[in-house]
Amino acid sequence: MKNHILLTPGPTPVPESIRTLMAEPIIHHRTPQYQRIFESATKKLQTVFMTKQPVYTITGSGTSAMEAAIVNFHCAGDEILVVDGGKFGERFTELAHAFGLKPTVLKVTWSEAVKPADVEAALRANPNLKSVCCQLTETSTAVLHDIRALAKIVSGTHALLIVDAISGLGADRLETDAWGVDLVVSGSQKALMLPPGLAFISVSEKAKQRMASSTLPKYYLDLKLYAKGLKDWDTPWTPALTIEIGLNRVLETIEAQGMEKVFSQCEALAKFTRSELEALGLKLYSKAPSNALTAAYVPDGIDGEKLAKILRDEKGVTVAGGQGPLKGKIIRIAHMGAITRTDLEAGFAVIKKTLQEMRQTCSAC
Amino acid sequence: MKNHILLTPGPTPVPESIRTLMAEPIIHHRTPQYQRIFESATKKLQTVFMTKQPVYTITGSGTSAMEAAIVNFHCAGDEILVVDGGKFGERFTELAHAFGLKPTVLKVTWSEAVKPADVEAALRANPNLKSVCCQLTETSTAVLHDIRALAKIVSGTHALLIVDAISGLGADRLETDAWGVDLVVSGSQKALMLPPGLAFISVSEKAKQRMASSTLPKYYLDLKLYAKGLKDWDTPWTPALTIEIGLNRVLETIEAQGMEKVFSQCEALAKFTRSELEALGLKLYSKAPSNALTAAYVPDGIDGEKLAKILRDEKGVTVAGGQGPLKGKIIRIAHMGAITRTDLEAGFAVIKKTLQEMRQTCSAC
Repeated sequence: MKNHILLTPGPTPVPESIRTLMAEPIIHHRTPQYQRIFESATKKLQTVFMTKQPVYTITGSGTSAMEAAIVNFHCAGDEILVVDGGKFGERFTELAHAFGLKPTVLKVTWSEAVKPADVEAALRANPNLKSVCCQLTETSTAVLHDIRALAKIVSGTHALLIVDAISGLGADRLETDAWGVDLVVSGSQKALMLPPGLAFISVSEKAKQRMASSTLPKYYLDLKLYAKGLKDWDTPWTPALTIEIGLNRVLETIEAQGMEKVFSQCEALAKFTRSELEALGLKLYSKAPSNALTAAYVPDGIDGEKLAKILRDEKGVTVAGGQGPLKGKIIRIAHMGAITRTDLEAGFAVIKKTLQEMRQTCSAC
Repeated sequence: MKNHILLTPGPTPVPESIRTLMAEPIIHHRTPQYQRIFESATKKLQTVFMTKQPVYTITGSGTSAMEAAIVNFHCAGDEILVVDGGKFGERFTELAHAFGLKPTVLKVTWSEAVKPADVEAALRANPNLKSVCCQLTETSTAVLHDIRALAKIVSGTHALLIVDAISGLGADRLETDAWGVDLVVSGSQKALMLPPGLAFISVSEKAKQRMASSTLPKYYLDLKLYAKGLKDWDTPWTPALTIEIGLNRVLETIEAQGMEKVFSQCEALAKFTRSELEALGLKLYSKAPSNALTAAYVPDGIDGEKLAKILRDEKGVTVAGGQGPLKGKIIRIAHMGAITRTDLEAGFAVIKKTLQEMRQTCSAC
């Protein structure tokens, strides 16, 4: 697998230096040595989250942090607004139902970003709405939502703005404090270029107030326990410490670069990806394109599932296919984290050749 | 840290071959390549759990699987019996309170195993008890509970027997099916010699019946979603896949050895550890000693916290100290997973020397 090119939007490639670091002999987590690493990583996470508020680290998949955003800040029966423009929008609705909340679902055409005016109207129509949930980057559609505009609207209400930035954080701009986002959720296996296993959540002052009155049952994801632990740079439960050690090193690199550099690099790679896809005759899918990943329709007559399978099994390039109604119709290519222009160039050369081969045997093309 | 000897009961040392394997370039989890690994590891987990029933793998700390045992099999208001003979016994009580259950706490002297007759009496006194929660190995005290005897009692009732085998599984004998244990919970960082980040739970037929009627809210830990995923060797959320890849390799080794060999090796190391501690003049703490770890009182006049600190920071040997009321009074030494007799011998030589040095400066000794 050494020369395999992984262009999926999570997991993304983990740099060799980080893999080697994580492969060192394991240490114990209740030691000053580990506490220093945890302190350092937690503080640096604030740089990436662009917040001065606490960022809590959970051992779990990204979904565990989405659940933490629900169970720590709501009561059964609470009404919330869920922006649903893809597979991950749906997840907030499922979470809300699972915990007895009443979600109002704001359906958005899958290729488009939510219209801020629609969120504003929903909030005006129902002053009981306790939260607005939205993705920064909807991974299933490669759509970037305008969180800045949403924050402007939501911050004037008593509602919390909950942003799932699992895919977007560290690739698409998200100024948590400056824009006024209450809860930002992310994970380790996207722009943070680590294996999956850690999830994160930042909590605004406004959200902290709400937390005190939440009555939903919780234990493993009870952020009060995480907040208490953070006072001594400790975690309530045994953490996925090898990934945390990798995180600290990744964040050192990101902090040294600066967020502006990170954003501009992702932007450049996104532009390159879009132009390459269009040069191959593939129509871009998203009308509000993300800098974390790009989706494009496969050409007429080509089965996108088959294309992705051939690329992965025969050509050494893994891209993501479409999910749900987009299955077989699009491919998705990530350009965040450790993915370089060289990776993308090599990937596109293979995609180009494979499409040519597939067209030769395709009667409908 | 290359020559540091880690003798803590989790994390335990991770073999170099496993660390190297987990450091290979990352792969995507929704691929046949990963599905084969997940299928293989899941089937082999059944060998270690000694069950033909499904074993679900959760990305999380061990506590996440303890929570899964509560939220998937109970309703608010359910009465349960919690055996509490240490810090991890307390955790079941905290979980029960967090989710609105009514725990009856059966306090057990910290150095002793629960008396099966006391569990029997509690079940007879309250036929409403829905579950009995107990540790296999209580890590804070190094006590082994007699799960076989408890299972004999509980299996005759409508209650479920929930066993936290986070520390004990793969070290202390636990015959899930043969004894009739309903839910067995474990984690990756103990006898399975992996980094923390994965948790496991096995579910008996009796427990499966109960699952259908559970009304506690859940999503991330909803085992129905894990069961559905398992049909296609898939996980509901992005898994901690590097650790899963390590798990599969570890389980290959364990399966090749056979569980009887694993148990007898741990037993031999436990006997060796106990005799070494006694030879050093340290009185054993647990009256029902585990084969996963051993606890011993530090000598009069010696501060156990200071001893553990000197060993770790100056001598290159990490042992665990005491927790709660045992802080400073005991040390705990693990002998499971990849810990060898050579590690223990080297560790004891250092402990002996350090105790001699501490005694020289101790006026009370």
